Amino acid sequence: MLSTSFADKYKDVKYVFLFIGDGMSLPQRMIADEYAKQNGLPALAMNKMQYSAITTTRSANKFITDSAAAGTAIACGAKTNNGALGVDANGNNLKSSAQVAKENGKKVGIITSVTLNHATPAAFYAHQTSRGNYYQIGLDLVASDFDFFGGGAIAKYKDKKSKGYKGSVHDIARKSGYKVLKKRSDIEAFKKGDGKVIAYANPKDAIPYLIDEPKSMRISHLLEKAIEVLDNDDEGFFIMVEGGKIDWVCHANDATTSIHETIDFDNAIKVAVEFAKKNPKDTLIVVTGDHETGGLTMGFAGTGYTSNIKLLANQKCSQGVFEAKVKRLLKKNKDASFADVQPLITESFGLLFDESKKDDPMFVNKEEFKTLSDAWHREKLKLSPENKHALFSYEKKRSPISVATVRCFNNKAGLAWTSFAHTALPVMTTASGVNAEAFSGTIDNTDIGKILKEMLDD
Amino acid sequence: MLSTSFADKYKDVKYVFLFIGDGMSLPQRMIADEYAKQNGLPALAMNKMQYSAITTTRSANKFITDSAAAGTAIACGAKTNNGALGVDANGNNLKSSAQVAKENGKKVGIITSVTLNHATPAAFYAHQTSRGNYYQIGLDLVASDFDFFGGGAIAKYKDKKSKGYKGSVHDIARKSGYKVLKKRSDIEAFKKGDGKVIAYANPKDAIPYLIDEPKSMRISHLLEKAIEVLDNDDEGFFIMVEGGKIDWVCHANDATTSIHETIDFDNAIKVAVEFAKKNPKDTLIVVTGDHETGGLTMGFAGTGYTSNIKLLANQKCSQGVFEAKVKRLLKKNKDASFADVQPLITESFGLLFDESKKDDPMFVNKEEFKTLSDAWHREKLKLSPENKHALFSYEKKRSPISVATVRCFNNKAGLAWTSFAHTALPVMTTASGVNAEAFSGTIDNTDIGKILKEMLDD
Repeated sequence: MLSTSFADKYKDVKYVFLFIGDGMSLPQRMIADEYAKQNGLPALAMNKMQYSAITTTRSANKFITDSAAAGTAIACGAKTNNGALGVDANGNNLKSSAQVAKENGKKVGIITSVTLNHATPAAFYAHQTSRGNYYQIGLDLVASDFDFFGGGAIAKYKDKKSKGYKGSVHDIARKSGYKVLKKRSDIEAFKKGDGKVIAYANPKDAIPYLIDEPKSMRISHLLEKAIEVLDNDDEGFFIMVEGGKIDWVCHANDATTSIHETIDFDNAIKVAVEFAKKNPKDTLIVVTGDHETGGLTMGFAGTGYTSNIKLLANQKCSQGVFEAKVKRLLKKNKDASFADVQPLITESFGLLFDESKKDDPMFVNKEEFKTLSDAWHREKLKLSPENKHALFSYEKKRSPISVATVRCFNNKAGLAWTSFAHTALPVMTTASGVNAEAFSGTIDNTDIGKILKEMLDD
Repeated sequence: MLSTSFADKYKDVKYVFLFIGDGMSLPQRMIADEYAKQNGLPALAMNKMQYSAITTTRSANKFITDSAAAGTAIACGAKTNNGALGVDANGNNLKSSAQVAKENGKKVGIITSVTLNHATPAAFYAHQTSRGNYYQIGLDLVASDFDFFGGGAIAKYKDKKSKGYKGSVHDIARKSGYKVLKKRSDIEAFKKGDGKVIAYANPKDAIPYLIDEPKSMRISHLLEKAIEVLDNDDEGFFIMVEGGKIDWVCHANDATTSIHETIDFDNAIKVAVEFAKKNPKDTLIVVTGDHETGGLTMGFAGTGYTSNIKLLANQKCSQGVFEAKVKRLLKKNKDASFADVQPLITESFGLLFDESKKDDPMFVNKEEFKTLSDAWHREKLKLSPENKHALFSYEKKRSPISVATVRCFNNKAGLAWTSFAHTALPVMTTASGVNAEAFSGTIDNTDIGKILKEMLDD
């Protein structure tokens, strides 16, 4: 629907892609690019966009936002309190860019690497004062009538204890005309004209980490399918894609897995870039983050001016998989010694304990050895609740040996972290294509919602 | 000299301002803005520019650059090794944007808050394989024939031990037609048409920190004078202004002083913004940093999602002044107890030790008390060289109590640091005015030099 009004601030645009890296700010974007460069991988598409904007992220009630408030700001263009989704700080419903797109005849797709009713995707279709209302958010998903949902499974879709429970979200979705696809082959066979769809790349949970299951179905595959089925008339589409697990691993201070997740996210952006090359006059691509997670920095007091990003390639699994290995070891033998866990550390992170390797950059030096063996001591203390006082406060909810190992490993590369939570560092928004110049200078995350809503409202 | 060639990539521009915040990346820019907001000060002009660009900073030989290599990249548009100034990695001379401006008839001004032959300003006029060649850099300064130098004094201007010493740089400068002004009143009396000038806001060293000497002559005053005297014909000017001491205090992990220095730097930017309002069709303003320093993050594990930036206003002097107070105390009494240093901590940072204040956010809790008293113990151990082994490695060159106090104070506000050196976090370049759109997307620091040189070459 081409507008004829010359008063329009923005050009009409047929295809809009909005990419949101959860927990992804400047450090996450740039360390992934450096890792790619060091390992002969292609440069990140997200850092090659024509325009960029510093993007502030505070929520209505906190300098440090959560994903619900940030998602709402990006989706709906208004501040809300941490925890709230698609409603303002007073609880009034807000309209998202996706909803505006839908009202104006565009097809809408929502894709994420986490569960489909997690905070960021939910900000585009739900209206809930608490992000924890998973079942109700599932119902909001169905009520949205959006055309394509792809990602992890809908969490708590059959949570009978939920207030107002009225049956499985899957059943309700089917009654509303959705196909609920749980197999990769079914998703791949889904065709243009097959109607509305909820597609699970993982039928049980979020999509696994790329580093752990590189052959799993990824958000880039879901985006290819969404483009194929949604590009079916003159109106075009609005597709939001979230790289949701960058945040999760940054909470765990796991830089390598965050890099792999960022590259995985960027692979989806590359799908959009290829599409834009074929539709250069009709396409806008916007890439942003919702907040920074972990206080990641690209320098460390112990390494000074020296970095060794290449060492990160020694990591072979996510921090989560390492932690599970440790749990299994302790389940088999609660008296396992630090020598018993060393092989797990070596196979997971490439850290070396053998004195004969002392000139290898991966060799664990005396100071690091003490840090790790002390952490192992506390890991075992943790098995008995009466020892809680001996733990660092952040270890109450975390595995001491896992935190110590991943931090030691990161430090060797010249990286460091200051938090297990989000930080207030602004994010970067980059954009290419039609109207991309709107994403310049310094903006607020609400501006993204405001700009896209105005742009999509014909 | 208006170009008539339609092939020109850039519009001709009469007035170019280039601002470089040393050690200033996204965290430094944004925390200063938040502090300003919390304390009722005006928002930073540097974050309100029309365009912004992510700017990578690696040097020819290091992922983490120093100021010499970064300054050379920004000034001359080419990579060089850390430590080198105005020469490439093979030692060949490079031409800077300032030199191109001069050759094309523009007046040139170089202003800095540090010494005039420090790395960043020197990158615009010197050609030295080592930034430590202060005397030779002083000679290069004179040889540049640039019109206005304003800042701290020329370091080692009379260093008779220097290779090729041929007299005081001041004398040589005077012989070359420069006025060397060391008094504020003389600088203020200097008028258009009075010729070339070297103006010292501090005749002995760098300009003092704003927080310590708020009434001292600042770079904003020097810029006002430079604009007044250089805007004297049709060709206009090129002025580079460095906020040089943001870096110094970030090396010391002193967030509050870095904020004040960033605001001080921004006050100079505001002078340019006011000038641009009067000359909107002829002015370009570019603001960048050379690298990040300290690994500053806007979140801390101990405070999680809570920040209290307002607490930073409790700091009353720079970390350096506090350190000097501690030195004086120990000189008077080498057995001074932790109780003796507490009043200095309280008067400098507002940290409270009195149990009756235990509900005050500035109260030093048990864990912090232990950290500080342990640091005081090490401060005294440091008086005897045989105790070196008892210090943390970073304390060999630093005051243990000063580092511990400033970090504890920063943590209370929800800020943290990971290094005492530079980091590889890209910086932000923001720009407004004629040709500002060239500073968009993701660029390299060498692009700034390349763009400005091309733009200034009529």
